[in-house]
Amino acid sequence: MPSRRGEAKSRRTNPSASARSSELVLGIDLGATKVVSALVAADGTAVYHSGRHLHANDGPGGVIATVLQAARRCLDFAEDRPLAIGVAVAAQVDPRTGTVIHAPNLGWRDVALGRRLADELGGAVHVVNDARAATFAEWKLGTGRGIDDLFYLALGTGIGGSAVFNGRLIEGGTHAAGEVGHLTIVSGGRKCHCPNWGCFEAYVGGWAIAQRAREAIGSEFGAGRALVERAGALEAVTAETVFRAYHAGDPLARRIVTETERFLTDATVGIVNAFNPSMLILGGGLVAGMPEFVPAVEGAVRARCQPPASGARVVSARFTEDAAMVGAAALARDRLRGSRE
Amino acid sequence: MPSRRGEAKSRRTNPSASARSSELVLGIDLGATKVVSALVAADGTAVYHSGRHLHANDGPGGVIATVLQAARRCLDFAEDRPLAIGVAVAAQVDPRTGTVIHAPNLGWRDVALGRRLADELGGAVHVVNDARAATFAEWKLGTGRGIDDLFYLALGTGIGGSAVFNGRLIEGGTHAAGEVGHLTIVSGGRKCHCPNWGCFEAYVGGWAIAQRAREAIGSEFGAGRALVERAGALEAVTAETVFRAYHAGDPLARRIVTETERFLTDATVGIVNAFNPSMLILGGGLVAGMPEFVPAVEGAVRARCQPPASGARVVSARFTEDAAMVGAAALARDRLRGSRE
Repeated sequence: MPSRRGEAKSRRTNPSASARSSELVLGIDLGATKVVSALVAADGTAVYHSGRHLHANDGPGGVIATVLQAARRCLDFAEDRPLAIGVAVAAQVDPRTGTVIHAPNLGWRDVALGRRLADELGGAVHVVNDARAATFAEWKLGTGRGIDDLFYLALGTGIGGSAVFNGRLIEGGTHAAGEVGHLTIVSGGRKCHCPNWGCFEAYVGGWAIAQRAREAIGSEFGAGRALVERAGALEAVTAETVFRAYHAGDPLARRIVTETERFLTDATVGIVNAFNPSMLILGGGLVAGMPEFVPAVEGAVRARCQPPASGARVVSARFTEDAAMVGAAALARDRLRGSRE
Repeated sequence: MPSRRGEAKSRRTNPSASARSSELVLGIDLGATKVVSALVAADGTAVYHSGRHLHANDGPGGVIATVLQAARRCLDFAEDRPLAIGVAVAAQVDPRTGTVIHAPNLGWRDVALGRRLADELGGAVHVVNDARAATFAEWKLGTGRGIDDLFYLALGTGIGGSAVFNGRLIEGGTHAAGEVGHLTIVSGGRKCHCPNWGCFEAYVGGWAIAQRAREAIGSEFGAGRALVERAGALEAVTAETVFRAYHAGDPLARRIVTETERFLTDATVGIVNAFNPSMLILGGGLVAGMPEFVPAVEGAVRARCQPPASGARVVSARFTEDAAMVGAAALARDRLRGSRE
């Protein structure tokens, strides 16, 4: 999911927007290191933000207490009760029950997050996987509006994704359809954080770009000194360090970026062939740091996908940091509408 | 799609079955070298088969004339008019109009197959991609009955596939969703027949297994003599030759099969992660020739997919040679029912 660089503090995001909170939904994005919540209007505008750093070591109880702090800050600001609450989590989620089945970065298994938030905050709480939430945001309010067959690819520290087919967000057998980060793109390749080898994420995920860069620095005498200086220490080199050094003309960073682009295009050509979307939307922190990736993917899709799948539009996401939170809010609003009809 | 070894002649397939043709649908499978048609009952049983060899060089007019011969032979056998006609084609098809958009092996572009068959034969004609038809057969009448999130993988000369999500066969933007044969599994790898490099099909498709075997024979002095003898000539070595030699204990065939299994499992682990089916159905001629592939894929999915996607059932298809034809008939029957309701 997108790297999130927002300050962990509260701010009124759109001073000009009216906080008619009777029309707002509370959106929450629960990541591995931070929770962000906001009051979100029907058009996806976030009216008031509240953020908190969190520590996975605190366990579900401690983390949920921090989530409640951020949420209550927004609720205090609202004039009336929001219509509903939507929560995005970097996890496998059962959206029907609101249970977090598995959140590797939080170390959670089977946590009844939706029920616990509903008990504390009242009202309808809708919990959803963050890539799926971001997909919904782009489909309903972003670049993908009106497109009924699209794929959203979240290029961040990890790689996530999700698809809309025939005007429906797909779930799959266990709500993980579209998790293309763990497609094998290098048979017998690098070990991934998951049980597989050679995954897309093991080459192009932010953590993997950083890992590949650190290996190159370590193995080549003198090379990459600029990268280490920029980061402060070898261990502190991240994908963002690499992208900044690339834009400053650093040769090692250029090599890492070129290789990354090759893996990215090889993966996305396969994804467009296999999922056959009308539109491929690229979002997440890596695209924010390297917007050059978007035309590179577009060129590869045109040249190397099978026609007519090769005609898919390739575009940048509208939402960056807020994608998952806005999408969770929009999904909660949508579900509310569904239950009223 | 599955390799088809059926004789290109007519036969009464189920002498005991009643040819109550008022309940039958005419199914047609139009491949690159052969057309097979049959009268198909509601349970997927084919009552009467008729086959014809065909030559893509004859062009759409000549090929369609051959299709009509095969179809009329079945219609002559029937007591009454079948309910409908379903046609599976190894091609990109627009199922709404019955137009074949692109059939690489037939050399067709934009051929109004459905309309031309309807003009000649009368009645409702439903044209569909063959992998999609086979998926429908397995979902409605085969191993996947009652499963609403499944992936069908057709391992034949080429590799095709298609998925059911939320109880619907997915189409994608241009009716090609599920074409996983052109997922990149070896970044920078072997050239595929498509415009991409390193595709799943370029390693595991029947043509690619044969190509890899012939390269190994050519490059290793003395090795593979048994394979060449078995096939009659180096150019005649096929995937089937390799599988038979493997089962006879040939060392080179063993190496090719072991490598193929590695590429197959690397690809299917990615497919199960990305599509997250409850069930993965393996069909096509390669599975018929190497049933050992099914437990190998199952073991890889359990060990290397992300939980809980790793719980997907991995099974063999019910239908082998007839899968696409039976599925096209079942789809035509289903559409008829839909239009009546």
